Amino acid sequence: MTEQATQIQPAEYAVVDAEALRAWVAAVFSSIGVTQEDARTTAENLVASDVRGIESHGVARLGGYTGRVRSGRTEAHAAPVIVHETPSTATVDAGNSLGQPASKFAMELAIAKARQTGHGAVAVRNSNHYGIAGHWAMMALPHDMIGQAYTNSSPLLVPTGARVAVTGTNPIAVAVPALRERPWVLDMATTVVPRGKLEVYRRKGLPLPLGWAVDASGRPSDDAAAVLDSMDRRAGGGILPLGGTALFSGYKGYNLSVMVDILSGVLAGSGWGVHVDGLHGSENEPAGTGHFFSATRIDGFRPAEEFKAEMDAYIRMLKETPRAEGEARIWVAGEKEWELTEQHERDGVPLYYKVIENLRAIGADIGPRFDLA
Amino acid sequence: MTEQATQIQPAEYAVVDAEALRAWVAAVFSSIGVTQEDARTTAENLVASDVRGIESHGVARLGGYTGRVRSGRTEAHAAPVIVHETPSTATVDAGNSLGQPASKFAMELAIAKARQTGHGAVAVRNSNHYGIAGHWAMMALPHDMIGQAYTNSSPLLVPTGARVAVTGTNPIAVAVPALRERPWVLDMATTVVPRGKLEVYRRKGLPLPLGWAVDASGRPSDDAAAVLDSMDRRAGGGILPLGGTALFSGYKGYNLSVMVDILSGVLAGSGWGVHVDGLHGSENEPAGTGHFFSATRIDGFRPAEEFKAEMDAYIRMLKETPRAEGEARIWVAGEKEWELTEQHERDGVPLYYKVIENLRAIGADIGPRFDLA
Repeated sequence: MTEQATQIQPAEYAVVDAEALRAWVAAVFSSIGVTQEDARTTAENLVASDVRGIESHGVARLGGYTGRVRSGRTEAHAAPVIVHETPSTATVDAGNSLGQPASKFAMELAIAKARQTGHGAVAVRNSNHYGIAGHWAMMALPHDMIGQAYTNSSPLLVPTGARVAVTGTNPIAVAVPALRERPWVLDMATTVVPRGKLEVYRRKGLPLPLGWAVDASGRPSDDAAAVLDSMDRRAGGGILPLGGTALFSGYKGYNLSVMVDILSGVLAGSGWGVHVDGLHGSENEPAGTGHFFSATRIDGFRPAEEFKAEMDAYIRMLKETPRAEGEARIWVAGEKEWELTEQHERDGVPLYYKVIENLRAIGADIGPRFDLA
Repeated sequence: MTEQATQIQPAEYAVVDAEALRAWVAAVFSSIGVTQEDARTTAENLVASDVRGIESHGVARLGGYTGRVRSGRTEAHAAPVIVHETPSTATVDAGNSLGQPASKFAMELAIAKARQTGHGAVAVRNSNHYGIAGHWAMMALPHDMIGQAYTNSSPLLVPTGARVAVTGTNPIAVAVPALRERPWVLDMATTVVPRGKLEVYRRKGLPLPLGWAVDASGRPSDDAAAVLDSMDRRAGGGILPLGGTALFSGYKGYNLSVMVDILSGVLAGSGWGVHVDGLHGSENEPAGTGHFFSATRIDGFRPAEEFKAEMDAYIRMLKETPRAEGEARIWVAGEKEWELTEQHERDGVPLYYKVIENLRAIGADIGPRFDLA
């Protein structure tokens, strides 16, 4: 149900074995000084994104991560430190490492605390881009817990009434186990559309629907190229929050984005708002990205088997809701991604040729060679 | 920042003293067998809504509450029971009482657990309509905690691709303390607009913007009267989720609504989805409404004074964001309600004449007499 989940069309891609891709990505990170364990953690998160059909957050971004590690802007060696804790909460300083090892550490800590007290909540400061949020929330599932993951990111969302981007895509991910049905997994940006969508419209020369983005004066714009250019120069304009303009209650998306930033940034003692630089930031300083994770024991409320059986019934209720004319299906959160995951783990992950070229260049530059496609 | 917060126009209303109104509403509940303490709790929640400018959830609904108590559909005597707990979590059975006393009990329990462990989360089953969500989230503020409150409600939201309402307005409320600035308080329905908005369009005979509601076939409709009529007969159609149609990512609002229902309904072991009846349900059985509350100690993560000073800076960043052409102000969540609260506590609460007529009728019927306007 993530907005970016798409089925890539044939002729644009080659298919690559998922496990071989994980191994190669991990080897690349090892080549630039990341420990084997952290390299594997980061590779699993990036490839999970491609496997789930969210190619915007997958190996297409590998060069961004490696570039930052090689330039020293992100630390190769992760050494997350618990700087403060109570039985149910903790703050972790990621030491400006890759976001993925810090996130795994923090979510494992949240799960351990939930096992002890019923609920664990862990905020992470001084981190970097952590890949897809859903991957971290889903760590709670095998423990019969509800997982949640938030992160802030570099500014691109323009608050209702403004003309400058202040918060990031600031996603919300929630994973809930079921019994026979597949877990319910929400992973959504709090913007109305992802940045990648504007890039597609620019490439195709199509006018944007009014309500997705505003120009440097704050007016709704249909010109993807102009908006992206202005955003990249930090000259104003950007993407509207979930809901778009005020007509469709865009201020709710704006405030959800702020809520994610309060938990991930302010509560963690990390960067927030316009101070978060993110993966594509141009300045030569730490990103200051913050995250927030929680794990909630289901049997802190009611027996887990009972709950999971009722989640099955809930999911069936959604699937069996009478459909609007012309609609083939009511989608359940995460369902599309589960179907793509099965397909891609079995038949291989489709990667765009331009992504493959990119991976070849990274392999030639850093090693090892990319010869999976 | 709540969608319903509006400034009532003169000539449509009379002004009533807030404290006198609370006392009268409490006296009405006492007249029908509710204990003094619970009557006061319920009155405070209802009047808080009017005071905050959200008249849709205020004393205008009093007759709905009293009608249910008098018919025995809601129990007059609240006896909330903790049916399960861990150090950080609990499930409370409200015993089909008014939602307000059960909510106060549950939020106090969440705060007590947070004081012990850093985080408290309490789910409530077998409850009824609890009024405005923000009121409960805000209970955390004096304790330097972040409060959250969710509830499910009777079906009126049509999931993306469907033609029948499955979930309710299912609001999300989050309250965050600041130091000198007023607390940041989000209180938002997960529908694109509240039901009351459709009622206003029906009354004025105006066409609905396409993207707010669908008719019984699931097609976007501009006919408020037809949609409301069809909804009320449970014949299909209803309000679209936050985001509206797929073009503005309405599936995100749909899934946020489901998330609220999973926490409030499934996790609590209460009613969920189409099984929640709500205040206006016609069947003669308990509403089965469920709620979910949490309290998070700020100093479970970092010193509270530090955090609150940084929230001040965050709020100022939002207020000072360069405005779009023609915009007078960037609103911060809760700001509008704080301003109205100050005004209404000082100068009195404006009540529509038709609401006053209603209160007079309740006073004549149940007692005491309503003579505040």
